[in-house]
Amino acid sequence: MSSYSAPVEDLRFVLNEVVGLDAVAALPHCESAAPDLVDAILEEAGKFASGVLAPLNPVGDKEGSKLENGVVRTPTGWKEAYNQFTEAGWNSLPFEPEYGGQGLPWTVAFAVNEMWQSANLSFGLCPLLTQGAVDLLTEHASAEQKAVYLSKMISGEWNGTMNLTEPQAGSDLAAVRTRAIRAGDGSYKITGQKIFITYGEHDLTENIVHLVLARLPDAPAGIKGISLFIVPKFLPNADGTPGARNDLRCASLEHKLGIMASPTAVMAYGDDGGATGFLVGEENRGIEYMFTMMNNARLGVGIQGVAVAERAYQQARDYAKSRVQSKDVADGKGSAVAIIKHPDVRRMLLDMRAKTEAARALALYAGTQLDVSRHHEDPATRAAAAARVDVLTPIVKAWSTDIGCDVASTGVQIHGGMGFIEETGAAQHYRDARITPIYEGTNGIHANDLTFRKTGRDKGAAAKAFIAEMRATAAELESAPGDDLAVIRTELTAGLDALDKAVDWIVATQAEGDSRGAAAGAVAYLKLWGNVAGGWMLARSAVKAMEGLRRPGANAAFLETKLIVARFYAEQILAISPALLPTIASARNTVMALGDDQF
Amino acid sequence: MSSYSAPVEDLRFVLNEVVGLDAVAALPHCESAAPDLVDAILEEAGKFASGVLAPLNPVGDKEGSKLENGVVRTPTGWKEAYNQFTEAGWNSLPFEPEYGGQGLPWTVAFAVNEMWQSANLSFGLCPLLTQGAVDLLTEHASAEQKAVYLSKMISGEWNGTMNLTEPQAGSDLAAVRTRAIRAGDGSYKITGQKIFITYGEHDLTENIVHLVLARLPDAPAGIKGISLFIVPKFLPNADGTPGARNDLRCASLEHKLGIMASPTAVMAYGDDGGATGFLVGEENRGIEYMFTMMNNARLGVGIQGVAVAERAYQQARDYAKSRVQSKDVADGKGSAVAIIKHPDVRRMLLDMRAKTEAARALALYAGTQLDVSRHHEDPATRAAAAARVDVLTPIVKAWSTDIGCDVASTGVQIHGGMGFIEETGAAQHYRDARITPIYEGTNGIHANDLTFRKTGRDKGAAAKAFIAEMRATAAELESAPGDDLAVIRTELTAGLDALDKAVDWIVATQAEGDSRGAAAGAVAYLKLWGNVAGGWMLARSAVKAMEGLRRPGANAAFLETKLIVARFYAEQILAISPALLPTIASARNTVMALGDDQF
Repeated sequence: MSSYSAPVEDLRFVLNEVVGLDAVAALPHCESAAPDLVDAILEEAGKFASGVLAPLNPVGDKEGSKLENGVVRTPTGWKEAYNQFTEAGWNSLPFEPEYGGQGLPWTVAFAVNEMWQSANLSFGLCPLLTQGAVDLLTEHASAEQKAVYLSKMISGEWNGTMNLTEPQAGSDLAAVRTRAIRAGDGSYKITGQKIFITYGEHDLTENIVHLVLARLPDAPAGIKGISLFIVPKFLPNADGTPGARNDLRCASLEHKLGIMASPTAVMAYGDDGGATGFLVGEENRGIEYMFTMMNNARLGVGIQGVAVAERAYQQARDYAKSRVQSKDVADGKGSAVAIIKHPDVRRMLLDMRAKTEAARALALYAGTQLDVSRHHEDPATRAAAAARVDVLTPIVKAWSTDIGCDVASTGVQIHGGMGFIEETGAAQHYRDARITPIYEGTNGIHANDLTFRKTGRDKGAAAKAFIAEMRATAAELESAPGDDLAVIRTELTAGLDALDKAVDWIVATQAEGDSRGAAAGAVAYLKLWGNVAGGWMLARSAVKAMEGLRRPGANAAFLETKLIVARFYAEQILAISPALLPTIASARNTVMALGDDQF
Repeated sequence: MSSYSAPVEDLRFVLNEVVGLDAVAALPHCESAAPDLVDAILEEAGKFASGVLAPLNPVGDKEGSKLENGVVRTPTGWKEAYNQFTEAGWNSLPFEPEYGGQGLPWTVAFAVNEMWQSANLSFGLCPLLTQGAVDLLTEHASAEQKAVYLSKMISGEWNGTMNLTEPQAGSDLAAVRTRAIRAGDGSYKITGQKIFITYGEHDLTENIVHLVLARLPDAPAGIKGISLFIVPKFLPNADGTPGARNDLRCASLEHKLGIMASPTAVMAYGDDGGATGFLVGEENRGIEYMFTMMNNARLGVGIQGVAVAERAYQQARDYAKSRVQSKDVADGKGSAVAIIKHPDVRRMLLDMRAKTEAARALALYAGTQLDVSRHHEDPATRAAAAARVDVLTPIVKAWSTDIGCDVASTGVQIHGGMGFIEETGAAQHYRDARITPIYEGTNGIHANDLTFRKTGRDKGAAAKAFIAEMRATAAELESAPGDDLAVIRTELTAGLDALDKAVDWIVATQAEGDSRGAAAGAVAYLKLWGNVAGGWMLARSAVKAMEGLRRPGANAAFLETKLIVARFYAEQILAISPALLPTIASARNTVMALGDDQF
């Protein structure tokens, strides 16, 4: 089991050099994100992540969270760690100072979130979902509800959950059956069962604020008849303390492949007549509100992909440096060397690292666009950034989590036989990572979102605007010195050309009305997007590294690494990306060609 | 948990139409492989696999094998199943009738092996390793040793194990330290510790025949100083029954990510002065002999990759047909449909199936070449087939096991949230599959084997001969009717062109002396080989399907499926393969560019 060391230097480089934290810090309400404060935050968060949360990761995996007599016990040490986490103010980073938040931009919160998730994915889910819930209530709750819930949730005294899924309603929320009845006093009575509720029950906080989708008896059918309710475990007293126990309980916890310590609850509402719920916003607009939380959580899950990849990389790198086995391939007479000397092990490490760094930069870039979309003074700039976030959200969620799984698997491979032994630690990352392409919408659903809502609906306008910006970087590289940048430019340009054509194809195919054909190519389309946008980030990173190397006193070893990682990515990942274009377009030739019974 | 149904129809099609079982059955010693007998074997094996072994797979996963007071207990029902397995004669399929074997070709044994591994990977490992041990002893043991061990091992009354790995000697067998001392009576005393010994201790058989690598005190250093010993758990009496307990014990079992029921033992030899061992062949030639077993086991592990992919496919397909969720993308007004109707789910299923069928056919093709290499009357034909097996072995091992992991992961994905719940069964395949790219040589080591020993050493001769044969199929397709075959021809030809160049590059790079550069491109080189050779198999399958469709009374639904699967593979997998060529050649630009401390 290797320790975790937060990649503070890389985060700082990406924030300051690649995605432009300075422009974010210049936005209204984001002034506190000055470089020295952000540096200090990264350093302190890194210490907390590596010192407190990371050592609990294997403990959590081994012990799991347990349900006994209706009570869920988190693993040894978790409650203490959670208390330290909230007392240090980590839960409140990106929220409104009015409710005790620190008012830092999401860009910074994303960087810090990566550390929590790297250190301990199961632990990190609790604040991740609370953040989404806070974001939702900030946007849609009444002033009174905000007064009761927000400060408690921002401090982390209470956590938030997301109750969408039911056995018959996973991805398809139109099928939600949980019922809400007007109680007459302004509140509602909620009855039904929800599944897959992360931190639906646990012992970390004194109260749990469930955000629950349910249907009123007179609601329209389908997606437009679903309302959103606050259903707290304990009904708040007038003084804000937790009061009477609400009519809800954890019926069971799931036995899962990974994230063992994150309690995944089956929640039963209203066994004794109905749980008391409080409507958020207006009736029948629940899905719309929930999307605020989901979009936030989707980017957060994308960051989990980055995070688990980083952790798996560190674990594999440390093993590769210490494990001595076989001679150097170029020195048949020497003695056995550390396996990091073997070209294929090195290639695997570079592959892990290049993908992780590309996905990290893209997620942080999405953070900057989110901040701009919320705080820029110019409405047109805000709208353009919001459109960028819309395009980025499915990519960051799906592409990064695919990378998380891929990199964690490579991490196991580097360990050889030891990778398969649970005590080594590599296998936990492989198991934990596997949920991330599934929850918060399967990656296939995000590919459809990118294809239909984010590309087809505006006829590719937002996609093309993004491509134009990436082309500007490629153009900038034309005059840049050196082989590395030349190679990066060539491969980035080829990737952008393919992406351009892919957008045209996606738009044209929908215009023809062939939605099945477009859907058949959707996953490859998203992968092409991720590969190219990630390559764009690393191209920007390479430009900055090259500039940095010319500065006296620069950390040359670090900057050279950035350059080589970017070139590796260009030659190994961008280089194969244009070949995805024909696969996008040809999938419709075969995907719908067989009858169900031919499978 | 879905049931397993052996893919008998596909196996029969591949054997009879694609890889040419008739030519194998025409070989000396292979006459028993007549089509009707083979049909009956496939049917019966399918019943045993699905009826007896498959239901024990989740039981084994849950219970695991347990070590208590030096005794290893396999899970509930395993001993009974093993007895049925051996009593039905399944263990003896490909072995010499002289020792009770059934003398069937390896081609048929491979087809049957796939079923055991699909049904229950943990169970299947026991006969898989015994088969390798039998093959080794048949080739290298003395007549006396054969008399004592072979019939017991062929019947399955005793199992065989492979004791290579030590803590400091995983892939690098030159580092083996286990000691052997001449006892003076012709036997040896063995002392040392071996790790990762599959079925090193268990309760399925009355005796366990360990094949152990060890070093004599006066042996040359390194790989040429290792000898191979038979070290039975119980020393055989003169009448062949198990006699005195040998000085060896299972010190512990590993706690693993998967294959929970397969006991992975730490074996301690000679705690009380030395375990009695019997030399196989000559001193210091152990590695050479062990390669017989390893080559056999490598192809067997490749078949495990196919097998777990098939099982994961069936599990996902059954779920996709039964799970109703969301509307058809082309019918916004309809009601929710089974998810198999969704284009991306269908695409995933086709992807799983195409890869599985390609890998299956390639493994069975390797089986035919193995049989030809052993039994053909013409020495030149035998030599050519042996060279083909040499090229195929690393490809079948590594490419198929990568496919096993990939397909098992897609299987989890198709299940959505349910895929992450252990009771569903998809996760077990994902965990079990993960060992297959690691054991019997990591896939990176096989990529090096393909690059150096199998391509560089003969300057690409065997590789080019193989490519020429594949080109003949592409040429045959030129005159074939229909779009599907035209597309397949185009993509296969492009793949072969890339492969041709890749072979040239690999040979030239080694000729230049850049072995690190060649090694850096090795994994992509192997992947290109697998993708193209698999595509070749499916191209042959498509030709035969097209021919079959013209025959009256043909199973049109099955043959159309073969055609569509082959076209899907061509457009989705072959189509991206030529892009691997530049990645092979460019890896050396970056892989060795950083210092160890830059990782």
